Amino acid sequence: MKSNLIYLKKLELFKELDNFKEGQFFAIADQKIKNHLPQWISFSPHIFWLKNPEEEKNLEVYTRAIEFFLKQGISRSSTLYAIGGGATTDFGGFVAATILRGINWVAIPTTLLAMIDGSIGGKTALNMPQGKNLIGSFHAPEKVFICGDFLTSLPEKEWFSGKGEVLKYGFLSQEIHELIVKKVPIEEIAVACAKFKNEVVEKDFREEKERIFLNLGHTLGHAFEYNLKIPHGQAVAMGLKYLFKVMGLNQSHSLWLEMVRALKLPAEKMEIGQYPHFDLCAFLQFLEQDKKKVDSKIRLVLVKDIGFCYVEEVPLKDFKTKIQSYAEFKP
Amino acid sequence: MKSNLIYLKKLELFKELDNFKEGQFFAIADQKIKNHLPQWISFSPHIFWLKNPEEEKNLEVYTRAIEFFLKQGISRSSTLYAIGGGATTDFGGFVAATILRGINWVAIPTTLLAMIDGSIGGKTALNMPQGKNLIGSFHAPEKVFICGDFLTSLPEKEWFSGKGEVLKYGFLSQEIHELIVKKVPIEEIAVACAKFKNEVVEKDFREEKERIFLNLGHTLGHAFEYNLKIPHGQAVAMGLKYLFKVMGLNQSHSLWLEMVRALKLPAEKMEIGQYPHFDLCAFLQFLEQDKKKVDSKIRLVLVKDIGFCYVEEVPLKDFKTKIQSYAEFKP
Repeated sequence: MKSNLIYLKKLELFKELDNFKEGQFFAIADQKIKNHLPQWISFSPHIFWLKNPEEEKNLEVYTRAIEFFLKQGISRSSTLYAIGGGATTDFGGFVAATILRGINWVAIPTTLLAMIDGSIGGKTALNMPQGKNLIGSFHAPEKVFICGDFLTSLPEKEWFSGKGEVLKYGFLSQEIHELIVKKVPIEEIAVACAKFKNEVVEKDFREEKERIFLNLGHTLGHAFEYNLKIPHGQAVAMGLKYLFKVMGLNQSHSLWLEMVRALKLPAEKMEIGQYPHFDLCAFLQFLEQDKKKVDSKIRLVLVKDIGFCYVEEVPLKDFKTKIQSYAEFKP
Repeated sequence: MKSNLIYLKKLELFKELDNFKEGQFFAIADQKIKNHLPQWISFSPHIFWLKNPEEEKNLEVYTRAIEFFLKQGISRSSTLYAIGGGATTDFGGFVAATILRGINWVAIPTTLLAMIDGSIGGKTALNMPQGKNLIGSFHAPEKVFICGDFLTSLPEKEWFSGKGEVLKYGFLSQEIHELIVKKVPIEEIAVACAKFKNEVVEKDFREEKERIFLNLGHTLGHAFEYNLKIPHGQAVAMGLKYLFKVMGLNQSHSLWLEMVRALKLPAEKMEIGQYPHFDLCAFLQFLEQDKKKVDSKIRLVLVKDIGFCYVEEVPLKDFKTKIQSYAEFKP
């Protein structure tokens, strides 16, 4: 299940959207980008606006969204648009996956992170009080409109998060690694990352083979994200660093540092020492409930060389011991 | 997406289930059949019991079920069992389709209707205040255990409903038609119906071609079900009869009568005249919101001969006129 990725400028995107001006344009959109969309969309009655998508990505708001679209007369032949960051596309995708047993949807990611990751590959999700993304389904968007012009108004924090995930792709693809170290414009790197993920997902939609490698850095990354309350991509960048450190992969750590510098990422913000509220016990506890844990082993993606990853099932106990004995984790 | 259909006696089923006695047996089950299951299941902590599945097949109970299974430690490698009638398998299948982005599930239908229809084909669903099955997904069970022994304790109403749906298969398959008119035991006919549906679904999981024919009788059927508050299969049997009457398909109506008699279905209970609360306006109104309506046309499945169905898109206006001018519909 591959999506049709369409790269376009804002004016072309607006022209595309204007086709629906007179018809029924069903959409879920982040209110924060209202001013960056064609004006008629502000007045369109078929749009379900989210104020704070990450907070609202839950079953309660989902219920309201389903009721809203049913009242608005959505049908099996309708298409639902999801416009915003990753939380918005996760939420919109899940609504599309389940309303009337599934309708077509189109993603319009407006953050770097959503352009290269969240909007591609059809993983849709809602959060539960027990954890993130515990409800969801695989439902690929028919099209993903990638419009780099949205990035001009992206807040600093979002840049950091997006680039953190770009860093991961630098280990998965020789081509992306080269773009990064050559310091080409980030929009160009983003297109390469989106294409790369789309290809991987085409080969392995249900994450049984190649797609697993896309989780590189995410085991520790998710634990940092939860523990430090930092943005996803930043947490992934930290997850990569400490994975290499803990597992003694020095060459990978050198590559990490090279790309962090090329992407102008603040290396100091990826040191545990910078976060006095870091709680080692809670961090280790979080690893226990990893979704990728099978029995008492944890499935880690590791790097042999750029473009050559492999999966290792490590007993959780051993992995925890390695973490505890690594100097920076010590309280 | 075909399921593995397994036909077995109750003792064999119990033996199968007993394998999980010491492990984690995650299940959603109808409380009414508790006494028909192995005793240890009554005490199993991982079972989410439904009191009244058709009433509970909604987002509120769904939320509780998801929370329940997450607390019970369900994981991506777990299998969820759904044990009961069609509402239970619809609900259980939707939980399995969406928890942790989808896990395996096994259906154990305990009513005739669920054995031949609801549990097969992977259509899962929840009801919304606006209508039935408005939320759902396509997620085929890995296995369906078909155990005719459950039918010995089936209430009269459920028999009628199941046989009503059997009637439909009698138009779709020459083999099933023969089994019906030869009056072979219903368990045998049920197996043929289940197999037939499973084959159709294998060819066309997403209901784009052959699977559409399984909707024969359902357009008027759903309207009767909603309007008269009668069981699904009974409504389908009525839907078939009046479809043939209204569309002037006399030969099909003769076949209908032949099979109704062979199945010992009460023909008089399928006459509109028997229902003084029938509301023609509401009935016609219901057709307006048919899920299979495209623009102002309604997609009807019609019968040329046994085993030869076709789809006709009829302007809704014309179809309503035909209904209104047919004597029995007149108030």
